[in-house]
Order: sequence, then C-alpha cells, then structure tokens
Amino acid sequence: MKNVYIGVDVGGMTIKCGIVDKEGNILYKESIKTINPKQSYMPFLISIKELLVKTIAKAKELKCTPKGIGFGIPGVVNNKTGSIDYVCNINLFHVPLADYLKDLKIPVHLSNDANVACLAEQLFGVAKGYSSVVLLTLGTGIGGGVIIDNKLFEGNEGKGAELGHVTMVVDGEQCGCGRKGCFEAYASASALNKYTKLSMEKNKNSLMWKIAKNDIANANGYTSFEAAKKGDVAAIDVVNKYIKYLGEGILNYCNIFRPEAIVLGGGVSNQGDYLKGLLEDYCGRQFYGYRETPKVEILIAKLKNDAGIIGAAALCFND
Amino acid sequence: MKNVYIGVDVGGMTIKCGIVDKEGNILYKESIKTINPKQSYMPFLISIKELLVKTIAKAKELKCTPKGIGFGIPGVVNNKTGSIDYVCNINLFHVPLADYLKDLKIPVHLSNDANVACLAEQLFGVAKGYSSVVLLTLGTGIGGGVIIDNKLFEGNEGKGAELGHVTMVVDGEQCGCGRKGCFEAYASASALNKYTKLSMEKNKNSLMWKIAKNDIANANGYTSFEAAKKGDVAAIDVVNKYIKYLGEGILNYCNIFRPEAIVLGGGVSNQGDYLKGLLEDYCGRQFYGYRETPKVEILIAKLKNDAGIIGAAALCFND
Repeated sequence: MKNVYIGVDVGGMTIKCGIVDKEGNILYKESIKTINPKQSYMPFLISIKELLVKTIAKAKELKCTPKGIGFGIPGVVNNKTGSIDYVCNINLFHVPLADYLKDLKIPVHLSNDANVACLAEQLFGVAKGYSSVVLLTLGTGIGGGVIIDNKLFEGNEGKGAELGHVTMVVDGEQCGCGRKGCFEAYASASALNKYTKLSMEKNKNSLMWKIAKNDIANANGYTSFEAAKKGDVAAIDVVNKYIKYLGEGILNYCNIFRPEAIVLGGGVSNQGDYLKGLLEDYCGRQFYGYRETPKVEILIAKLKNDAGIIGAAALCFND
Repeated sequence: MKNVYIGVDVGGMTIKCGIVDKEGNILYKESIKTINPKQSYMPFLISIKELLVKTIAKAKELKCTPKGIGFGIPGVVNNKTGSIDYVCNINLFHVPLADYLKDLKIPVHLSNDANVACLAEQLFGVAKGYSSVVLLTLGTGIGGGVIIDNKLFEGNEGKGAELGHVTMVVDGEQCGCGRKGCFEAYASASALNKYTKLSMEKNKNSLMWKIAKNDIANANGYTSFEAAKKGDVAAIDVVNKYIKYLGEGILNYCNIFRPEAIVLGGGVSNQGDYLKGLLEDYCGRQFYGYRETPKVEILIAKLKNDAGIIGAAALCFND
C-alpha cells in the first residue's frame, strides 16, 4: 500500500478532488458542482462527504492508503478548529467541516486557496527550489500565499496572508472587504477589466474594439494586453496603469517579506512572459523596493488548475 | 562562569553596549559617541572593537563568559555575511563588521534595529507570552520587526520586515527611500510633526501655540497630542489624521501577518494609553482588517532605551 493524500479544491462553481502522491502526481481526479447553500450548509457538507467516500474507495482500488485530506477554501478558515468561517461567494458561514468528516477517520486540514496554490508551486511548480516565496493570485480578487523557510505561513488561526486586502490608496476605491483602497481594488483581474472598459469608452478608435469584436461586453484584461502588444496607444496606457499598481504591490511584498521569488497566478498571469517583462522593468527601476537588497525573481505560476488539488493534498504531507 | 551575551545598539549619535544574561537582565552598560565616517569606515570599526574589548574584560571581571555579540543596526544588513550594507544617516556602506571582529573569537550576529527591539519586547517586554508579534517603531522613520512562531523573521539576507517602506498612497508623499507614498511618510513621528506645524500655521488661535510656547520651532507630535487631549479642535484634527494613517497601516499588518499582537515603539508611543485607545477604536470599527478574525492586541513597547541592547544580545541566545 502506497501512502497518498487527498486534495480538495473548493471553488465557487466546482469542487475538485484528487488523489495525490508525495511527488505531487495526481493519480485520480473527480469533481462535482458546488452546492451554494441557501439556508443550511448541510447539503454542501453532504456532497463533499459523498465525493470523499468515492475518492477513498478509488484510493483503495489503486492500492493506496489516504493519510490525510486537505482543503483549499476560497475564503476565511480557522485552521485550529477545521471550520470554514466565511466564504462570501458561496454563502458559507461557520461550517464545521473537519468535525463533520470525523467519521472518515482521516486527518483533515484546511487552508485558504491562495495558500495551497503557493504551497503547490513551491513544492512542485515554478518556485521549486526557492525556500521563501510570495504568491499572488490575480483573479476576481487578489489572494496571497507565503512560504517562509520552506514552510507555509498562515497567521493566527490561518487568517494571515490576506495580501489583497492591504491599503494602497488611503480613501481610494471601495473594496469588497469593506475597506477602501485595497491592493485588490487596483490590481486584480477585475480592476484590469474595469480600466480596459473605461478606456474603450473614451477611445472609440482603439484596436481594443476590434479585439472585443465591437462589443464592450466581450472586453477584459486580455483585450487591453493584446492591443498593447500591437502598439495601440490607449491600450498601452491601460496596461501601464495596471502594471504600476501591481508593481507597487510587488515592491511592497519585496520590502515586507524579502522573498527569493514572487509567483503570479490567476487569470492575469496568462499574459506570461510579457507581463513578467513589464514587471521586471518596473520593479528593477525601483531596486525591487530598496537599495542593497538581493534581487527577487518574478515568476509565472505553472500548475494552473491542478495547483489547488496538489497544494491542498500537500497540507497533509506531515500526517 | 555564567554565560552572557553582549548586545550592541548602534544609533546615529551613540553606540550603546551591554552585557545581558539569558533572563534579559543588563549586568553592565557602556556607551560611546558614534563616529560618522567621512572617508573610511575604519575609525568606526576601531571604536566598536575598543568598546567590545573593554566590555569583554568587564564580563570576565563579573565571572561571565560572553557567548555571542549581537548588533542592532539602523539600516540594511546582510545577516549571512555579517556586513552592514547601508546606513544612510551614519554614512556606512558595505562595512565588513563580523569579519573585522573575527579575532575576538566570539560569534557575531547582525540585525536591523527594529528587529532586535521586537525580539526584546517579545522575550522580556510587553509582548512576552505572545508567539506572533509585529512591532512598529514610530520615530524619524518607521521601522518594523516581526516574530512568527516565537522566531524572528528577517527575510532573505535579513532584509525583510521593512514595514515602513510600503506604499500606502500610490504617487503620494516623497519618501526618503526613493519611492513615493510610503507608510513612513504618513505615520512616522516626522509626519506627525509636519501635520502639527501645518495646522499651527493655519490655526493661530489653537492651544498648540501655547503648548509650544508661541514658537513653532518647539512644536512636535507631543504638542498636538497634548492639545487634543484638552479638546483643541485643530489639534484633534491633526491627531485624527495621524491615527487614520497609522491605523490603516496597522490594519494592513493585521491582514498580512494576523499576529496576536502589534507593539508600538519609538517617540510617538510615549502617548501610551491615549494612543492605544484611539487606535483600538479605529481598528475595531474595521474589524481589525477583516471579518471573522481573532482580535489583534495593540500594545505599547515598554523596554524603551534598553530594547536595543537586550534584543541585540538575544540574537545570540542560540550560540
């Protein structure tokens, strides 16, 4: 019997579950639709237990012993009690997940989704070999994950590393978290989409319109990045504005954590080497935050959709 | 023979040196004027070695064995090579401190001054018993120290935790570090002094004038805090503005590190419980950064001028 670890990636639309070995290989994968609880969280919990029972049976078929079950949660967890405390876009509040799964008799670990993505990239992805890493997921919001001395840093109750919710402009844009001027409100994919659409409305001759097939509803971050690459002036302005805010955030995390590498994940990271080049240029001009400091590598996440499963499973590697 | 540790607190005006035991008691203290090197750093190094030779002799007199020498440096160090890389206000660049002290045959450790202050407060001061702590020194600038899981966090080469150099207002006030809009430019004692003087110029009837003996050159943060406590409207505005920026910075570090406690040191922290009360109110109204998170204690540093010596010595406790 080979030891394996079950990783569960809880998303707003889908819950993905996989059997992972200690080398980071996914031996089996399965997914279900996320049940968004209206009143009780029980249907959500029941669906997860069913998924796990099935996955555990599959592990036995594969002659494997599941040593732990790890969860990546898109919100606030309590890693001491194993509960999901708050996920706004799945309507989950104080869900006693680990407690409910007790009778499976396998240790359960929970962490934030960006934390597990960071762990996956550091163990098996683009940041392999780096001992201190900061990961930023640039999606609807901005998630953060931090590895210090080869160990996931989570803060008290696992509620640290909320790297998107740091004021970058006091009294600035309203953020979903309730505060104003958060990094997330200026440098998430949503912010980039907003900059793109605002510019299109002002610049009717921009190439961005052609790329979006003349419908602003089709426009997003891809639109401005593609037009900028082709030299469109309005799009270059959009991209420069975005790079400035993202760059300032990266410089902040260089100064705070002085990691060896900063990894970018999420939708915007699909801009790959082009994005990386612009950021290296912006951050390099500012000495990566501070003079006389070692360089911080900017890397593009590579495990993509598997990062959640692998990283969640990796939470259990010490079980 | 009792094991002791030598702590050296390098300041812009004075270098203080002490013999410290593992319980944090200072058994002997000595200080010299800081030699600000014009051309060569050798006079600076020679003066430190003399001070140490004297201190080591004193330790022997006291029947103690010095097991390590620790330094708190007001600038950028390299804790791998033991060099002082950059201290702008003592004109030090690439000073091979540990190397120069090799013949004393005692291990040498270097760290940033705010880091060692944080270590001192967590081991023997106001944050004793807390395992995760962020310290902010509110002086000419803002220094930062971080303890995670009872361990000092320093970042790559000891160049992390530059918590004052984090953009809080993109394109904002020019900061000494070269970037714009840093936390330090808005919430240091210097920033408070500036707010106070600007307000006095505008409000000729403010009580602040009386407290400053009708000379604006006497005005500083103490002036506005004292006048605010007595109900002066202009001074209350100054204090509220300051609390807002400092509060936003504290909330940011709650979200990033989610520590058990945030300790405030430096000149502004002399406002003690009054300052603490205002900040608890400001941060409490914003759920200490994020909903469903454990409360973060705001504490006032208590070791004051001894924190540097004790913390620097504590860098060597594992020698």
